[in-house]
Amino acid sequence: MEGRMKALVKMERAPGLELQEVQIPSTGDEDALIRVLATSICGTDYHIYAWNEWAQGRIKPPMIAGHEFVGEVVEIGKNVADVQVGDLVTAETHVVCDRCLQCRMDQRHVCAETEIIGVDRDGCFAEYIALPAANLWPTDPDLDLGVASAQEPLGNAVHTALAGPVAGARIAVTGCGPIGLMSIAVLKHCGARQVIATEVNPFRMELAETMGADAVIDVNDGDVVSRVLELTEGVGVDGVLEMSGNPAAIDQALKMVRPGGRVSLLGVPSKAVPLDIANDIVFKGVHVQGIAGRKMWESWHQLKNLLASGLDLRDVITHRLPLEDYREGMELMASGDCGKVVLIP
Amino acid sequence: MEGRMKALVKMERAPGLELQEVQIPSTGDEDALIRVLATSICGTDYHIYAWNEWAQGRIKPPMIAGHEFVGEVVEIGKNVADVQVGDLVTAETHVVCDRCLQCRMDQRHVCAETEIIGVDRDGCFAEYIALPAANLWPTDPDLDLGVASAQEPLGNAVHTALAGPVAGARIAVTGCGPIGLMSIAVLKHCGARQVIATEVNPFRMELAETMGADAVIDVNDGDVVSRVLELTEGVGVDGVLEMSGNPAAIDQALKMVRPGGRVSLLGVPSKAVPLDIANDIVFKGVHVQGIAGRKMWESWHQLKNLLASGLDLRDVITHRLPLEDYREGMELMASGDCGKVVLIP
Amino acid sequence: MEGRMKALVKMERAPGLELQEVQIPSTGDEDALIRVLATSICGTDYHIYAWNEWAQGRIKPPMIAGHEFVGEVVEIGKNVADVQVGDLVTAETHVVCDRCLQCRMDQRHVCAETEIIGVDRDGCFAEYIALPAANLWPTDPDLDLGVASAQEPLGNAVHTALAGPVAGARIAVTGCGPIGLMSIAVLKHCGARQVIATEVNPFRMELAETMGADAVIDVNDGDVVSRVLELTEGVGVDGVLEMSGNPAAIDQALKMVRPGGRVSLLGVPSKAVPLDIANDIVFKGVHVQGIAGRKMWESWHQLKNLLASGLDLRDVITHRLPLEDYREGMELMASGDCGKVVLIP
Amino acid sequence: MEGRMKALVKMERAPGLELQEVQIPSTGDEDALIRVLATSICGTDYHIYAWNEWAQGRIKPPMIAGHEFVGEVVEIGKNVADVQVGDLVTAETHVVCDRCLQCRMDQRHVCAETEIIGVDRDGCFAEYIALPAANLWPTDPDLDLGVASAQEPLGNAVHTALAGPVAGARIAVTGCGPIGLMSIAVLKHCGARQVIATEVNPFRMELAETMGADAVIDVNDGDVVSRVLELTEGVGVDGVLEMSGNPAAIDQALKMVRPGGRVSLLGVPSKAVPLDIANDIVFKGVHVQGIAGRKMWESWHQLKNLLASGLDLRDVITHRLPLEDYREGMELMASGDCGKVVLIP
Repeated sequence: MEGRMKALVKMERAPGLELQEVQIPSTGDEDALIRVLATSICGTDYHIYAWNEWAQGRIKPPMIAGHEFVGEVVEIGKNVADVQVGDLVTAETHVVCDRCLQCRMDQRHVCAETEIIGVDRDGCFAEYIALPAANLWPTDPDLDLGVASAQEPLGNAVHTALAGPVAGARIAVTGCGPIGLMSIAVLKHCGARQVIATEVNPFRMELAETMGADAVIDVNDGDVVSRVLELTEGVGVDGVLEMSGNPAAIDQALKMVRPGGRVSLLGVPSKAVPLDIANDIVFKGVHVQGIAGRKMWESWHQLKNLLASGLDLRDVITHRLPLEDYREGMELMASGDCGKVVLIP
Repeated sequence: MEGRMKALVKMERAPGLELQEVQIPSTGDEDALIRVLATSICGTDYHIYAWNEWAQGRIKPPMIAGHEFVGEVVEIGKNVADVQVGDLVTAETHVVCDRCLQCRMDQRHVCAETEIIGVDRDGCFAEYIALPAANLWPTDPDLDLGVASAQEPLGNAVHTALAGPVAGARIAVTGCGPIGLMSIAVLKHCGARQVIATEVNPFRMELAETMGADAVIDVNDGDVVSRVLELTEGVGVDGVLEMSGNPAAIDQALKMVRPGGRVSLLGVPSKAVPLDIANDIVFKGVHVQGIAGRKMWESWHQLKNLLASGLDLRDVITHRLPLEDYREGMELMASGDCGKVVLIP
Repeated sequence: MEGRMKALVKMERAPGLELQEVQIPSTGDEDALIRVLATSICGTDYHIYAWNEWAQGRIKPPMIAGHEFVGEVVEIGKNVADVQVGDLVTAETHVVCDRCLQCRMDQRHVCAETEIIGVDRDGCFAEYIALPAANLWPTDPDLDLGVASAQEPLGNAVHTALAGPVAGARIAVTGCGPIGLMSIAVLKHCGARQVIATEVNPFRMELAETMGADAVIDVNDGDVVSRVLELTEGVGVDGVLEMSGNPAAIDQALKMVRPGGRVSLLGVPSKAVPLDIANDIVFKGVHVQGIAGRKMWESWHQLKNLLASGLDLRDVITHRLPLEDYREGMELMASGDCGKVVLIP
Repeated sequence: MEGRMKALVKMERAPGLELQEVQIPSTGDEDALIRVLATSICGTDYHIYAWNEWAQGRIKPPMIAGHEFVGEVVEIGKNVADVQVGDLVTAETHVVCDRCLQCRMDQRHVCAETEIIGVDRDGCFAEYIALPAANLWPTDPDLDLGVASAQEPLGNAVHTALAGPVAGARIAVTGCGPIGLMSIAVLKHCGARQVIATEVNPFRMELAETMGADAVIDVNDGDVVSRVLELTEGVGVDGVLEMSGNPAAIDQALKMVRPGGRVSLLGVPSKAVPLDIANDIVFKGVHVQGIAGRKMWESWHQLKNLLASGLDLRDVITHRLPLEDYREGMELMASGDCGKVVLIP
């Protein structure tokens, strides 16, 4: 497709994003071109916007940012057989090599050559995006467009939640950003006995309750670990989903989990975290699981089926703004006074 | 049984152990009295001897030290049905409650109420020891007595090694103390494709080769991680058994494992260890497993069957001394110039 | 406790049960005496009553029948520490040896020396029952007594349902007797995407819908497998819980499951069943799981937590009769026009 | 590549294969052309040759038979990046769709649209074969060419053997055809405590011993199950690899496995097999696993690494014949007086 489109572009090695008019991307034989109907902001996007240390080491401007979206296929390459023009789709945002040992061992989510949309190649904060058709995931047209746009982070929530037993289990979620909030709903939908959320932001604490948390602990109120032990008759929780990346929360996660439990780490700390490995991991026989991306395609099937069986995430989508108001969206992200923020191109 | 016996007793809150003559312990209805034929020294015993910080916080003198042994049953309580006088036995050293959530969930190795022989109650550095019969494990009379005495730490090696895939896998073992050495032999016996050992002590490096390590890396020689990557075509190992408790080794373990691999932690660091959780655990999707004790009784069955099918650990037993020479044994442990040191009462 | 009590006794090797007045059972040092508040009828009880081939081979009269109950502890042996007089309890009905390989490998549910209450030793169709205290399971006093009495078969439902993935999965339940009905509720509670039930009896078909089945297939209506394929876009279900023991249903289960899925067999056929192993198991890579009893004590913890988090099974309890009306209860079981039938001593 | 080549072709719907001169196959953009250096005969090939019921229902002549081979890449399509002309390769013989639910859930080995080489498309009993490059597997040039040709069935042996615990386990192998023989070697290489083989043919019984079986039971000698129980102190084996497809062997497999064990079915019976599901699967809590093909690519990595660490299968290759002598090869297969028979084009 010829023509120009609006896009949020990282123009230079500095904070901010620019709304630009750029060429609609061209598509190869294996690609599809998608008209973006809604795109949502991830913490990663905010890091790129704010130009933090990680972004400075990884991002090579100029690049269109953004990776979460839902859209309609408007053009397909000549070798594309599995999607059609007119299909409503979202996308797995990791473009993998299918060749390294991890890809060959059914661990594509940790492919050694992963290229991420909106990080290593042009993203979806734009009117159109071109992608390998193999990365597309068909989407139910009845789904709220905001939720549909956020299926990729929902995949992270599902991957983290279902990385250990949930049915009848007591689980803590440390950190109630959008993925933490979605994971609370996933846990309750899948029969968790008790979901305990920890959070610092009052807006998000209230959202955590809305999503179904049985207890929400205000981290500012003091001893989180004691509170969790109280809520679990002194035993501790069977599992923790660590969603904050906060060093104190990671330490607490290891202390609130019962011996033999699991701590699933999705949150990304920005520096080294000191851990009491002897007492909190070895002697307790705890399993600490690094959770990267989504299992391809198990997590996607799970999220599709959970949505189809009534998992309702509309309350996580707290803001819907025109693409032009992206600065307001980024400020919301910085404040924490939001769930998922959706931009409409 | 009436009478007196020799025993190595922690008499006071200070370094050292004293060779004493004490009462032969009495046995309850569920207990057995065992005449100790051989007993071996664990790192824990050395910590108690040296009176390090952990020992100061845990040990309550007076107490007979020691927990690894093999011996002959000489007396049984009236409710004991499963062992007979004359049986050759060793013991699971964790006396568990069978009542806490962990015990009820088949995770007795992390029982919340564990009492450890030679740590929380009288041990086996003595001519006799009394124990709940339920903790005894029958032992093949054809087994070398030194190896038979060290079946409990072998259980740790087996628990750690078999906590993830071994057949056809590339595995690193960081730290070649007795348990590290035994785990090398276990890995090779179970079809590991490649076993890479890391160690600082020349004596133990040579033993690691004797046990079958395909490569032994001298930690003093520089960049351990690069060397492991070289030995694995840049991919990293599928798993690491961390046997040293050394903070640098734990950090290296996380860096030498391939994405999606496992790091099984048995070594116990004496203070908090800073970890690059973002890059070394989360983004790599690594599973970090705290390994505590032995699975009751899966690890024991496994070790019995591995020994029965030809696993040969005699080379790990480097020293056999009379009980009276325990100070020499402890000094050997401190120097690292030994495998397993056995004391004969 | 001295005295006499009412009990339903298998008096001789013939059909029927007799209401008798017998001695209240005596208790050993490790036992508890429980006053039965409610007891429910299992298919096994009906087999004993009807004196089918299995019963003729296994049961040794005279014996009090029955194994499902809830009651109050009225007396404890001198070594009993974990339950108190006054506690409300139900029981694991398998008395295991704790000594065979299976017991030692955390597979007590298939102990080689299992003794079953009401099958191999006196049961609970009576005013009192004496049992090893280790077999008791504390029960929430707020639970409906009928449901409380049926926690043991609920354990079977939970064991079967959670023997494979449930969250986001499509699962068929073949056979809607009480355990099938309970498993439907468990599956929906734990996030199953779709639950398809098959049944012949109209009363139970309606109950299956009440319990939350997304579709109920009348087995009399023709091709069950085609109907399941239709309901799953031609793919088949991810798992089947086989609850009927009917040879045709077992064959259908293997044909309706998708390649790579699981078929969990709890139903007990009364004779050999011919299976198309090549096409239905080997080429499809299907896993067929025999499900025996309940995992001790994982299944019990799960059922306790599922009940505590809102799993509501009251609709499964369709009849509550005085113990004296046991013949009416047995006839209800024979007709299939019931869910769980509870007897009140 | 232009030209003609020798090939064994199923010319019509009748027993036999014809040695023909046919066109060298052409290659598409994603394909490679391989010069076959050695090709081996599978039971499936014999079924096609003998034109049994299965073959009559599946094979559509004319078609070149054969699927096991090793060869050298002589030509690659323009989109092929991962193999080079000159590479020594063998092949995964299942060409999968990468699109069905199974492929998407990391279960490619049970892809709903599998096309098998030499069954659904032209095979490798020829001088050349054209294949999707994605199906090729690089092969160590130091490997014996006969063994290299049989890596695909070795993958089946590895998939079956490693489908459950092996290290320290007691395993029976029922049926000592080439895959059974290879699995014996795999089990011993991976630390099995005891491998018990059952077989009817004296030639293969001797080969089973050569491969390392601890005991070989002559099925003609009477009660196989009793003999296995004797050899395992009455307990039964932890697992059975069923390699014969013989109905009696399948029944025995379920009876010789201990409660809680696994029976992994690779052998393909030609008709329905009656099983005592109640006593042999449900009450024993046995897991019956259908094993189809090889995990892509986990089984391949495992077999590569097992070969690299010393697994020696040369004794399984009992006959090496020129391609022209294929009738002799087929007769050997029919007689059972062989291990693997290799044809050299």
